[in-house]
Amino acid sequence: MTASFGDGLDVVYSVTASADAIAARAQDIAIEQTVEVTPALCADPFVATHVVGRVVDIVPAGPDRFDVTLSYAGDVVGDEIPQLFSVVFGNVSLKAGVRVREVRPSPSLVARFPGPRFGISGLRDRLGVHDRPLVMGAVKPLGRTVQELAAFAGAMATGGLDLIKDDHGITDQRFAPFEARVAACAAAVAEANRRTGYRTLYCPTVTGPADRLLSRACFARDAGAGGLLISPLVAGPDFLRAAAAHTGLPVIAHPAMAGAFLASPDHGMAHGVLLGTLMRLAGADMVVFPGWGGRFPLTRDDCGAIDAALKCPLHGVASAMPVPAGGLTLERIDEMRALFGMDVTFLIGSAVYERSSDLAANAAHFRHLAACGRGAR
Amino acid sequence: MTASFGDGLDVVYSVTASADAIAARAQDIAIEQTVEVTPALCADPFVATHVVGRVVDIVPAGPDRFDVTLSYAGDVVGDEIPQLFSVVFGNVSLKAGVRVREVRPSPSLVARFPGPRFGISGLRDRLGVHDRPLVMGAVKPLGRTVQELAAFAGAMATGGLDLIKDDHGITDQRFAPFEARVAACAAAVAEANRRTGYRTLYCPTVTGPADRLLSRACFARDAGAGGLLISPLVAGPDFLRAAAAHTGLPVIAHPAMAGAFLASPDHGMAHGVLLGTLMRLAGADMVVFPGWGGRFPLTRDDCGAIDAALKCPLHGVASAMPVPAGGLTLERIDEMRALFGMDVTFLIGSAVYERSSDLAANAAHFRHLAACGRGAR
Repeated sequence: MTASFGDGLDVVYSVTASADAIAARAQDIAIEQTVEVTPALCADPFVATHVVGRVVDIVPAGPDRFDVTLSYAGDVVGDEIPQLFSVVFGNVSLKAGVRVREVRPSPSLVARFPGPRFGISGLRDRLGVHDRPLVMGAVKPLGRTVQELAAFAGAMATGGLDLIKDDHGITDQRFAPFEARVAACAAAVAEANRRTGYRTLYCPTVTGPADRLLSRACFARDAGAGGLLISPLVAGPDFLRAAAAHTGLPVIAHPAMAGAFLASPDHGMAHGVLLGTLMRLAGADMVVFPGWGGRFPLTRDDCGAIDAALKCPLHGVASAMPVPAGGLTLERIDEMRALFGMDVTFLIGSAVYERSSDLAANAAHFRHLAACGRGAR
Repeated sequence: MTASFGDGLDVVYSVTASADAIAARAQDIAIEQTVEVTPALCADPFVATHVVGRVVDIVPAGPDRFDVTLSYAGDVVGDEIPQLFSVVFGNVSLKAGVRVREVRPSPSLVARFPGPRFGISGLRDRLGVHDRPLVMGAVKPLGRTVQELAAFAGAMATGGLDLIKDDHGITDQRFAPFEARVAACAAAVAEANRRTGYRTLYCPTVTGPADRLLSRACFARDAGAGGLLISPLVAGPDFLRAAAAHTGLPVIAHPAMAGAFLASPDHGMAHGVLLGTLMRLAGADMVVFPGWGGRFPLTRDDCGAIDAALKCPLHGVASAMPVPAGGLTLERIDEMRALFGMDVTFLIGSAVYERSSDLAANAAHFRHLAACGRGAR
């Protein structure tokens, strides 16, 4: 056991192993995530001292289970988000019984990553809303025409939702091609904003081909979009940073495919690591995840861990906004506020459409409810 | 139960549910992966008929376990690789007890995706090697200088390895910055090729920032690289296609982070789906994965499933090359050939460096061994 690299990243892995084997397993992970060679081939003094991961701590955490803290040098991670993901869980994902419990970047490592450009306070400034949770709606479903989707977006903006995103699966299908849809929805929201005085942000899905995603993001900005929805585990996690840098817009991370990392209690990544710390470091201003008690199996504790990781002090990195979703209904807003506090964005999909046939009135009701709680109804 | 969409994609999910609940679970997945709304909101006749996924088959597969075949319309998938991944496993990844067992694209869907541009036969043509397995070495470890890494690459090329890739974690760190390293390694391999007459391909790691990955790929091609190594689950799966299209080079998929999908028997994706069918559709000419009996827990059956999915008839899509790796030693080549046959590429990392201090001689021995089997030693 040695001291952490002061300029790097400490990662706590929960590892399945016997007491006899854990020291070797910890060393194996340290090598696998950095130099990927047999121990004899990393004996070079420079490599052994400056490159190979260090085993900092091993603590029993249950029967045949240990919390292993490894430290990686800042120079191993460099200043690239993909390499951050590779160092934390690249090769070791292929081994049994390894779950990332916690990621602790050093101040100097954090300085290399931009984090959220807006974060909670920047989003609030842009929206002019400082005294209540935010409310987000979804343009849906896939299969509707450009005109239908734009009408939905305009109605929800008229009702005063703060943000309106596309469903993540509405990309560039022939039902509603990307450019026509984004232009029409952005125009409908802008027109509503002119009438109402609200500052609703329309946030289209820009997940798409790797060589067209940034041009889509720029098209969206030029068409009047106020933010961008990206599925980082589908598009690649670094598209959050890249899209934000190229457009200057807030970026929302969608959790499609993320469940692969979360499903097993003894493998993958903890909810707060993947959807909290890593998405925040990758630049997400807002992170969508399934709230508990909806149509997904996340627990209240899982949601609390994500919330904490998005908001905890992190060497000056801006806090990111939790966006619980996945089957939320209007009746559960108070219960959600009890966990997340005021800094939360409620994403309600179907429920906004279902309350009555007047979508604008439904949206207005939802905005009011988020501001005041159920007593306001 | 209904007929498949003839122009789309059928996906077989292994689902945990009671017999009473499985029909509703199947319908839930069909909605979740397409329209993401409550059943009432997808009653629109066009959406219900042309957009919502269809439950095609439900077959018992064990206690509280069913194989559910869903069909998705071609227009829902469109012609984008990220959306293909989202439709197969995006939202449903966040639910418990769902594993993708098989992905069956229709001929018309396959026509929208390029698949491998080279594939096994194209790689063999480029290398001029048609009568034996291929052999690949790795430039490593992270922490070595440009000069050291280039010397390793040159020596392995001198010994006649067919392909030489970077370790996937060697990206653009200050130890050996991307452009200097790639130029030096490519030059060393080219110089060796001139001397030997071999056609060794140097394949650098181009995984990197989302907005610089393609320029790195083009830099590598212009510097003389003969292929590209990409970690699709880190960079984004569509970078395989994009990098291949922009450079015209063969692309190698590295499995970093892929283990998150593979670890659980009742969640995620089967080995043959993720590292076989999907990587092939995404355009990988070669797919690296851990061989059995090395330092990773994959079984011989897992490897066989990947091999089968990379090579099976798929409506004219080229076969992709399996590249077992992860702690292979020279002694195990015969055992591997028994499973993979002649169309396999052996990736041996540390073992090439460790046999003796003469790296070129070690590489030559390895090439000879792959061609002739152990009896040749």
